[in-house]
Amino acid sequence: MRDVVFGGANSLDNYLARADHSVDWLQWSEEASEVMAEFWPRVDTVIMGRKTYEVAAAAGQGQGYAGKANYVFSRTLTQAPSAGVTLVRDDAAGFVRQLKAQPGKAICLMGGGDFARTLFEADLIDEVGFNVHPVLLGDGIPAFHPMSHQIDLELKSCREFKTGCVLLIYRVRRAA
Amino acid sequence: MRDVVFGGANSLDNYLARADHSVDWLQWSEEASEVMAEFWPRVDTVIMGRKTYEVAAAAGQGQGYAGKANYVFSRTLTQAPSAGVTLVRDDAAGFVRQLKAQPGKAICLMGGGDFARTLFEADLIDEVGFNVHPVLLGDGIPAFHPMSHQIDLELKSCREFKTGCVLLIYRVRRAA
Repeated sequence: MRDVVFGGANSLDNYLARADHSVDWLQWSEEASEVMAEFWPRVDTVIMGRKTYEVAAAAGQGQGYAGKANYVFSRTLTQAPSAGVTLVRDDAAGFVRQLKAQPGKAICLMGGGDFARTLFEADLIDEVGFNVHPVLLGDGIPAFHPMSHQIDLELKSCREFKTGCVLLIYRVRRAA
Repeated sequence: MRDVVFGGANSLDNYLARADHSVDWLQWSEEASEVMAEFWPRVDTVIMGRKTYEVAAAAGQGQGYAGKANYVFSRTLTQAPSAGVTLVRDDAAGFVRQLKAQPGKAICLMGGGDFARTLFEADLIDEVGFNVHPVLLGDGIPAFHPMSHQIDLELKSCREFKTGCVLLIYRVRRAA
């Protein structure tokens, strides 16, 4: 089974982005860059909700991430928004379950607390990694939305960056 | 000026307690115990909102914390709920500002995201320390509520416990 990895950067008060989607508060660093350079080759598939796709497209990633299979999940879109991206309209959880069963590398879940909630609730996420930034944004788009049940985690690593960010990586714990 | 310290334990998804106030998910450990034993003598004053007081009282702390000055902030209470506790009815921020200016040790802000928000918005909190637990509770009482403005933090320390908890301690950054 392939891993689904949910991660990104968040504020200490659990926001992925400001309410207007801006991420001007992100602290890029050589250390963060190294972590991404190590992580990205582990992934061959990117999945995201429509809202995250639109933010990525506005940032110039409308063709999808190069060298990866890109899937956008949306009930409202009627066609794939670009040639590099496959649209999935129905049964997001079933589709991801089937993707996980195929041979391949890890599946990266981009952005989207809303879409992540659907996959958490269907027990399809295996790894959670967040680079916790030293800021309380006060408002914005939550990394973790309210969910119907608790998810137990196991800390795999904790790394402090020079910027004051702390990278926390967890495995999802499942009843055996 | 005395420090106001806001801290406690939270889940990775930013909850202090479940919706019913229960904290059965807390992982107590010798390491956490050592941290508390080191921290508690730094404090001579405890401040909390009414809701937090009621939870503390139900847990047997209705007389306030021994050896500390205890203040409960409430607009609805008309008298102090016990002899060990002083009731503050009006202008929480003004009262805390005046407390900070008195000589003494640190002031510990207990529980209460709601009360903490008031003090964050009045720029009265100096230190933030949370023991991030390896769990997504999915629902509950947030440690950090939405606020009117961003609060910048400086990471002072990051410590990984054997339980998989990570203790993050920050100073609040202020424009000079």
